[in-house]
Order: sequence, then C-alpha cells, then structure tokens
Amino acid sequence: MRDTEFLIQEAAKLATAYVAGHFDRQEPVVRVASAAELAERLDLQPPRTGRSAESLLEDVRSTLHYSVRTGHPGFCNQLFGDHDAAGLLGEWMTALLNTSMYTFEVAPVVTLMELALMRHMCGFVGWPEDEGEGILSPGGSIANLMALLAARNRAQPDAKERGLDPGRRLVVLMSAEAHYSVERAASVAGLGTEAVRKVEVDAVGRMSPEALEAAVVQARASGEQPFFLCATASTTVAGAFDPLESLGEIAARHGLWFHVDAACGGSVLLSAKHRGLMRGVERADSVAWNPHKMMGIPLTCSALLVRERGRLAATNAMGADYLFHQGSDARYDLGDLTLQCGRRVDALKLWLSWRAQGDEGHARRVERLFTLAGTMRDLVEAREGFELLREPEGCNTCFHYLPVGLRGMEPGPARSRAVGEATVAIRERMRAAGRVLVNYATLDGVPAFRHVANNHRTTPEDLGFLLDEIERHAATLPAAAGRAPVPAGAARRSS
Amino acid sequence: MRDTEFLIQEAAKLATAYVAGHFDRQEPVVRVASAAELAERLDLQPPRTGRSAESLLEDVRSTLHYSVRTGHPGFCNQLFGDHDAAGLLGEWMTALLNTSMYTFEVAPVVTLMELALMRHMCGFVGWPEDEGEGILSPGGSIANLMALLAARNRAQPDAKERGLDPGRRLVVLMSAEAHYSVERAASVAGLGTEAVRKVEVDAVGRMSPEALEAAVVQARASGEQPFFLCATASTTVAGAFDPLESLGEIAARHGLWFHVDAACGGSVLLSAKHRGLMRGVERADSVAWNPHKMMGIPLTCSALLVRERGRLAATNAMGADYLFHQGSDARYDLGDLTLQCGRRVDALKLWLSWRAQGDEGHARRVERLFTLAGTMRDLVEAREGFELLREPEGCNTCFHYLPVGLRGMEPGPARSRAVGEATVAIRERMRAAGRVLVNYATLDGVPAFRHVANNHRTTPEDLGFLLDEIERHAATLPAAAGRAPVPAGAARRSS
Repeated sequence: MRDTEFLIQEAAKLATAYVAGHFDRQEPVVRVASAAELAERLDLQPPRTGRSAESLLEDVRSTLHYSVRTGHPGFCNQLFGDHDAAGLLGEWMTALLNTSMYTFEVAPVVTLMELALMRHMCGFVGWPEDEGEGILSPGGSIANLMALLAARNRAQPDAKERGLDPGRRLVVLMSAEAHYSVERAASVAGLGTEAVRKVEVDAVGRMSPEALEAAVVQARASGEQPFFLCATASTTVAGAFDPLESLGEIAARHGLWFHVDAACGGSVLLSAKHRGLMRGVERADSVAWNPHKMMGIPLTCSALLVRERGRLAATNAMGADYLFHQGSDARYDLGDLTLQCGRRVDALKLWLSWRAQGDEGHARRVERLFTLAGTMRDLVEAREGFELLREPEGCNTCFHYLPVGLRGMEPGPARSRAVGEATVAIRERMRAAGRVLVNYATLDGVPAFRHVANNHRTTPEDLGFLLDEIERHAATLPAAAGRAPVPAGAARRSS
Repeated sequence: MRDTEFLIQEAAKLATAYVAGHFDRQEPVVRVASAAELAERLDLQPPRTGRSAESLLEDVRSTLHYSVRTGHPGFCNQLFGDHDAAGLLGEWMTALLNTSMYTFEVAPVVTLMELALMRHMCGFVGWPEDEGEGILSPGGSIANLMALLAARNRAQPDAKERGLDPGRRLVVLMSAEAHYSVERAASVAGLGTEAVRKVEVDAVGRMSPEALEAAVVQARASGEQPFFLCATASTTVAGAFDPLESLGEIAARHGLWFHVDAACGGSVLLSAKHRGLMRGVERADSVAWNPHKMMGIPLTCSALLVRERGRLAATNAMGADYLFHQGSDARYDLGDLTLQCGRRVDALKLWLSWRAQGDEGHARRVERLFTLAGTMRDLVEAREGFELLREPEGCNTCFHYLPVGLRGMEPGPARSRAVGEATVAIRERMRAAGRVLVNYATLDGVPAFRHVANNHRTTPEDLGFLLDEIERHAATLPAAAGRAPVPAGAARRSS
C-alpha cells in the first residue's frame, strides 16, 4: 500500500507538470530521436529482477520526455489532439476500477453509463425513440468491421452458423477516399478486398450518387449481391462529407445496409450550426462515431450505433453461459453485442466529459474547431506560395506549398512530383525542429500537407506560425530538392 | 489548467482512499443494486449544460461506491483480480500521453516498449531468436480472431484479396471446453460456427489427442480442409491445460496452424515450477496470452504472439499511405499488424509492471496463485458437503456444495438439477450479502461454483471465509430450494 500511495502521489505531480507544459510554446511537440538513438539512450529491456519505485518514476520521466506531446497547440498530425480534464479523470478512475464491460454484474454503474451515452448519441443521429442501440468499441476500424458483419449476416441469414453462401458474391460500396478499415473488414469477413467497389468522388471529395447507382446496377447485372454501402462523414484526408440524403435513398431502393463511417465527423451532430453536413444520417442502419476525435476524449473511444435493436447481439452472441447468467438485470449485459469478451471501460471518460461539457459545451468545442479550420483555409488561400487543394467541408485543410524555385513550373507530372517531394522534405524538417507536427497524405496522387483542426489548444496564431515554419524550412531546401530530375545542364531557376 | 490541476489532485486523493479500502475486509466487494435502483439513485443522463468540477467528483464518488471492488481479497468472480501499483501508474501515464500505437512517429517510446515486451514474451514461449513477433490487442477474443485470420490466409493465400475459396470448406478444431471466442472468430471469418469441431476432453478437461486425430481424419475424408487447431492453455471454467506436445505433433503432421489460446494460462511460462503445464508450446504457430489475468496488469492487456515474422502484416496490412510513411524507422510502425487503426497504448502499463516486478517477481506471483489454488482445492476436498468436480491443473477450482437436505439423494439427473439450482441460489445470496464475489459456470451440464485464484490479495483465510459463506447461505435456503420438483405430498428431508 505504501508503494501504491507513493506512486499515486508522484503520478499526480508528474501529470500536473506535464499538462502545464502544454501551455508553454517553448516546449517542443516532439524531441525527434530515431529508434536506434532511443534504444541507446533508454534501457527498454524487461529485467529479470524488479526495480525500485524511484527507478520506475525515472522511466516515466524519460518516456514523457521522448514522447510526442499530443496536447501541445502545435500538434495537428492526427485526427485527435488534446484531451479534456474530465476525460483524463475518467481514464484514471477507469484504471482504478479495473473491471470489464461484459456483464452488468461486474460493471453495474459504467454499464448504465454506456447505455445512457449510446441512447443519447442515437438521439443526435435522429432515429425514432424506439430504435437504435450501440456499443463502445476499441477504435473506428473495429466499429466498421462490426457494422459490416451485422450487414453481412442480415444479407445472408445463415452466415453466422453456416458461413458465407458460396453461390452469392457479396459486394461492398464505398468512396474512393473512404478509410482503409472498410477494405480490411471485407477481407476479415471472408469477402476479400476485391469485393469492395470504390466509387468516384467529386472535386470536394464526396461520393458521387450517380457513380454509386451505376456501380450497384453493374454489380447486380454481373450476378453479384451488393449489400453494404459505407458512406463517409468526413473523409480521413480531405475531410469531405458524403451526401447522406442521396446515398441513403439509393441504399433503401436497393436494399443495402447503409453504414455511415462518421468516425471523424460524427461530432458535428452536436452542433446545430454544422449538423447539416450530415443531413440524411437518420436513414443510416449504422453509424460509427469516435468521440476521441473532435470531442477530445482520451484514446480510444469509438461508438458503433445500430438502428435495429437486437441486430448486434444476433450477429455476435454465442450463448456463453459461464459468463452471461439468467436474471432480471441480464438484459443489461453488453458483452453479447461485441466481438470482444473482456472489454475495457471506455464509457466513464466519455460520460464524465459529457457531464463536464454538456451538449452545449461539446457543441461549442466543435464550432470552435470549425472556426479554426476556416481560419486555416483562409490563411492558406491568402498566402503567397500556398495552394488550397480542396475546398474544405470539415476540419481538414489540404494544401501545397510551392518553394520559390517551383513557382514558374507548368502544371503537370513533373511539377506534381517536385511539389510532392518538397512537401515530404519540408515536413520532415519541421518534424525534426519539433515546434509543430503536421502530417502529409497523398491526395490525387501527390503528397500534400493535411492540417487537422482537432486540437482545442491551437489558436489562429499557431496556424500562422505553422505556415511560417513551412516557409522557413522550404527556404533551407537545396535548390534542386523537391524538383523533378532535370536534364543535365538545364538551368536552375533559383540558387 | 486550474481545473485540470484540481481534478488531478482530487483524483490522487480518491485513488489513495479507494485503494486503502482493498485492505479493509469490512468494505463490501459490492453493494448490490439492481439497474432500476441505480437508475433511481444516480443521475446518469448526459446533460445539456455542463457541470462543475465538484459535481464531477461527486459523480466519481457514486461510481466508486456502487461499482464492484475488483481489488478486494474476496473478489474471485472473473479471470482477473487486483492490479499492481506499477500497472496503475502505467494506465495513468497512458491517459496523459494520449497517443495511438499505429506509427513509431507518434508513439516512439511506447512502440519500442511494445516491441521489447513482445520479444521478451516470445522468449518465454521458446521460439528461436530469429522467429516470433507480436502485438497487443484489445482482449483475448480479438487475439484469437487475428490468429484464426492469419491461419485462414495461410491456408488460402488468395483469401485476403479474393475472399474465401467457395470450393473448400475450412474446418477449425478446438476442445469442447475451449473459449467461445474461437467460434465467434469462425463466424466473423466467414466460415460459420458449424465449421468448428469440438473435440472431447478427458476427466480433467484436456483435449483428447486421439479424438482430435479422428476428427481431422474424418473432416479430410469428407472433403473438408482442416486448417486451424486451437489448443487451450487453461480453459475458462475448469482451468485445464491441453496436452500441447501431442496436439502440436498432430497439427504438424496434418499441416494445421497450431494456435494456443493461453489467454488465461500463458503466465505459467514465467514460472520454472509450473511452465511444464505448457510443455510443447514452442511448437505453436501463435499464442494468445493475457497479462491482465494472472499477471495483474490493468484491463485490457492481451498479447498475440506469432511465430512467423511478417505473417500478421501480410494478413492485415492495407497499404494506407496517408498514415504509414516511408522512412528509416517505418519498419517500427506497428499499425499494419493489427485489425485496428487507432490503437490504445497497452504497452506502458505492462512494461512498467515488468520493470517493477522483473521476471522473478512475476514468477513469484504466479507461484503464489498456484499455492492459493492448491489450498482452495484441499479445503474443498476436506470439508463436509463440498464436492471437488475436476482435479485442478491451473488456478480454477470447480466444486459443488450439497445442502444438508440433498446429501441423501442418489446421483442422477434429479440430484444434479437440485445441486445446480442450489449453487445458483447460494451464490446469488452471497452476492447480495457482498462479502465475497465468486462465480458459477455450467460444468458437465450442471451449474457449479468456479473459484479463480487470480487475485493476489486473497489469503487462505479468505478462502475459508468463502466456504463459510457458502454454508451460511445454504442454511438459509428453504428446504425445497435447490431441489427438483418433488411429487406433491412427498416428505421433505429437512425443515
């Protein structure tokens, strides 16, 4: 007990100091070190003989020192950022409780919290009161997988017991810019990645309803069985929202399960101002929505919401009577709804954060992030040398920076290659400098900066600084860097 | 920041007080309340308007008050129990770091920790140094699923892209007492639960090699393709260890992927004294091993270890270039090995605990649990009215208690039914009293007490108290309770 008490006290001190660092812009986002360097500086080997509590704290200090400071205002590298204090408290209390979500019996309060949250989130989707249920899952990929499995077993009701019908080739539809987890889900489910048809997107990155209709008709004509339409509400790279109203109508007409992968964008449902981006979501059969993204809940926190009550249990339950007992409260057991047996408590952090913020606080957060994203868009558009690549719908801004030496090049493959190489090179230098961490992604075949406004601590000044950093590091590139190979002897535009 | 600092300080105080309660045997394991009662006493609704920090702390206090105290010495209800202080520290620091395990770039230190842990655990499995890799997954069920998928895609190399070969019926083999997640994995993978053949077990609960051989031969003769043998190292209910040496030999002879579901038992590998229970494990193609069980790591912490390096990536990678970038340290990116995209940091808690305990400390813990289980077995065997149902190999003790009124009954279905009903009724009264929480499970068709020695805080005195509680509550049963319906007017044996 004395050891425990000591470690608890020290953890609180470390945490207080660490969080204070998020407010200090002189703190680096990351102290970049290669794996080889880290292996040299840190002793990472699990030892034969145990170490003292003081030695553990030293380990923790090194871990914090060399880790990425995701709560830093300059962290905009992933689809998550800072987390709120109530969420942190929730995680800490979850570790203290150390229970598993399979039965009401061993997790009574947190089970009811999860149920209340799922009902509340279904309300934002807009299903009627007597429809909808949900489950928290370890990430959006598993949520998408569970949705696809539920759909597969609805399309082929014998699949659970007898396996896939070898006579029917099941087909999945999603946009060309949807998340890779849907393809993996098709592979997991036994359909193979080739069963996934990637429907073309418009200039903003939204799935084309006409192209979808054509793809469904064509699959039908080939004797295939289209069964699962995955729309995306905020695509991973461009942040586009597929037109749910039209897609839902097509799904209904063709009897497809209509899944909305709103892992990134689901939180817009909280804001009266922005929920129009997901107009038509109430047509969905299922929705994946990750509160660990825009809502700032500690990782991981992903909800899968399913319109038809009982469908998740019908898909996943195996009747394990050693675990699930008959009894008046057995209907609250959540274990049969999932692919997991033991399941971590992800509900408490979300619930506490919702208590702390309320619907209103979370809506304000979403709105602030959209405002921030709008500022980013405008800065990129206004600044010399920057090119906005897609008109942003959500919180992602995709853009290029053209080093001075490339600005005179004619658009075409050579310029694209040069700009892509420059993007990667500039970003790598920014990362090494450690002041901001922004990611890049391939868009229309070319690496581009992808800024994500998911971090509540980021201010407009931080965005300006990010663009300054890009310019500053671009200026350090060798003249040829980021340029397509040029014929020997060709003149170079700048020194 | 002030709110965060306040909540961190208060969390530390709450945690210190809560953990102190684990040492006080007057504290109940659980204050039983029905879902309806909890819904009345607690305000569980996510509110429209945010609440104060003080109100959050009140919420936390109620949550702790009505939750099951899994660290209590009387908690032996699940395959996990108390957790160690280093693990708690690890979870708290994980929440603080708030990063995701997909790329080395955003999770440098914890990625190297996970790699070091996986190598270390592969060493305990006993694979050669140039074989073996692993990944932490959200629970043993997902680990078993990933093993089955890797095996499926080895058996049918086109499965990832083209889906299951409709011409070949894949077959899974496991024991009749294996965990239900294997059946679910078969269903998920598109094979269906009927593809799973349940091989009979011996009197201890171990899979019969002869019956396995016969099942494989029979499946082959029917034109099926057996491909996945799941052995269990400590079954969920009886705690039996399948004979890995013999099963591995059969798997090798028939070209089956040999998976060992050692979610429960894997930690015996740490103890020179007990690792003989898993003799032959080095023959495995994959091993699932949950440190959140016998090792006392906070939930969830599950490793999937796979002998063939590259097999997990070959199964799961989708080439998502928005996330995984080329670069010298890209080979440390773990994201492509899993079914997840965002993945919680489960490595830090395990790593810190391993630093604190060392191999030796964890071995001692395992050995103490076995000693405790041996004491339980002996107590059950020695006490009047108790019946040991299986000779325990691992840390589970399955037994019946015969209320005085049932002791004269002839063995047979009526007695079994009466004993099973008594088990459930006694256990329900014990749960309501809240001094100990022990589970029951169906064994050979009859509900039986299942004691799990997984809790480091439990002492031999606690075990004696548990048996006392069973006797005490049995004495409160109405004479007819736990009895088969008796013909009207039949004499009752006791009042």
